[in-house]
Amino acid sequence: MKTALVGLGLIGGSLGLALRAGRLVGELVGYDRNQPDLALALERGAIDRAAASAQEAVSGAELVILATPVMAIEELLGAIAAHLSPGALVTDVASTKALVLDWAERSMPPGVAFVGGHPMAGSERSGMAAARANLFRGAVYCVTPGASATEAQVACIERLAAGVGALPLRVQAAEHDAAVAAVSHLPFLTSTALVSLTAADPRWALWGEIAATGYRDVTRLASGDPTMYRDICLTNAEQIAPLLRGLAEKLLAIADQLDDRTALERLFTTARAQRDSWLQAHARFQLP
Amino acid sequence: MKTALVGLGLIGGSLGLALRAGRLVGELVGYDRNQPDLALALERGAIDRAAASAQEAVSGAELVILATPVMAIEELLGAIAAHLSPGALVTDVASTKALVLDWAERSMPPGVAFVGGHPMAGSERSGMAAARANLFRGAVYCVTPGASATEAQVACIERLAAGVGALPLRVQAAEHDAAVAAVSHLPFLTSTALVSLTAADPRWALWGEIAATGYRDVTRLASGDPTMYRDICLTNAEQIAPLLRGLAEKLLAIADQLDDRTALERLFTTARAQRDSWLQAHARFQLP
Repeated sequence: MKTALVGLGLIGGSLGLALRAGRLVGELVGYDRNQPDLALALERGAIDRAAASAQEAVSGAELVILATPVMAIEELLGAIAAHLSPGALVTDVASTKALVLDWAERSMPPGVAFVGGHPMAGSERSGMAAARANLFRGAVYCVTPGASATEAQVACIERLAAGVGALPLRVQAAEHDAAVAAVSHLPFLTSTALVSLTAADPRWALWGEIAATGYRDVTRLASGDPTMYRDICLTNAEQIAPLLRGLAEKLLAIADQLDDRTALERLFTTARAQRDSWLQAHARFQLP
Repeated sequence: MKTALVGLGLIGGSLGLALRAGRLVGELVGYDRNQPDLALALERGAIDRAAASAQEAVSGAELVILATPVMAIEELLGAIAAHLSPGALVTDVASTKALVLDWAERSMPPGVAFVGGHPMAGSERSGMAAARANLFRGAVYCVTPGASATEAQVACIERLAAGVGALPLRVQAAEHDAAVAAVSHLPFLTSTALVSLTAADPRWALWGEIAATGYRDVTRLASGDPTMYRDICLTNAEQIAPLLRGLAEKLLAIADQLDDRTALERLFTTARAQRDSWLQAHARFQLP
């Protein structure tokens, strides 16, 4: 199965490494408009061959994987549409799915199907240099079928996900977008807001000395790629906004009950039980 | 230097282990009203001898370390006051300092000095079972002198902090309390609010499947000890409340600019730079 891989950052590069390590696809032709990432992908064996353009990469490919930032996908779909082979299957790895599926429905020529994908794996590091073949091991890989995709095509992307070590999970785009807004985008924005509030304070020189592992962990996501998260916000604002407002409301409610022994204890005990039970049910996230 | 250690949870127990491992004090007499923790402290060598009460533990001690939850300290100071030896030095390890220093000023008999302490080390695990001798290695240890403490007495607590591997940092109680509100209490409450919001949602069954390492890390502190954090809130509400409101305001501002490419990019880029520069300046917090 000749495969094109467009976008060789952390996720695209890691997919390339995993696909080639597992001999899961035929010739893997890669493209990235960032020349150093493209060269490094070739050097590290994440692709078999470097194409000179996205159009060249997808020509003749049976499977096309788009691994660019989400905001680049609309234009990319338009640019490659005329170059896709009849019967080709196109997938992506973007963090939001509803808009991507809309774009795909509008751009894909007849006979070309789209199945969205989103591996729940990443790092606060970015780029091909941070890519690794085992990035997806044990991670959930959301698969969101486009309207014209057949069951066999959806199953093909699920096999691909399983092949790189992930756990495929079929989910509708709207439900996916609400879920990632809650468990990924909101945590990132919270991390970022926390850094933004504390590090801009005139007392930060002392605060930074006293900050320790708790601060480090809660703010870890704030070190994530600004471009990726900007795109995530732009494409998932409808799902994110009510969650941000809900969290703000919760913080204000806590501010009003800081002298209420019983309410505090109930809140903290419940949240701890909820978090511990999530962690227990997902043992792969337990730290040593 | 005969020493009393009252409270043998994570911090008290770890202090006992570190003090004995480094032969930093003379006979170390311990007490905890929780019998299993007291027995385990003796068994693990965190203390030399178990006392039957806090009063018995402090009798004849030159150094008294209070390592109970902060809300227990006021009553404890009253209970031991009459049993303290003239010239004794009392310290604590509580997470907030202004109120503790007030209580100490009111309770300590003449000739007994108080120097507050707060090691910036911990774990989401609690109790003597989680104690370890190297818990304080490389951690900042805040030292907040009481009004009647001499320079030699403050230096004694600083030497104790350095002796268990920590970095002593002298700081006034009010400044300490504002700092920990920002970099410890606010992160905890944010973690907790995030869990509370997401895990109570009717869509949590799916959300929990999709949640991954980002969610795990931003919510880690929510697994902390509810009693300790309740006490922290009750004793540091004045410092915490404005920070909670400031963070809520920031989240609402972000909710209003989710379609503003430039504003999002500026916010994310700045926060990333701030967090990365903090992490670089404090290399001990860098993960492998």
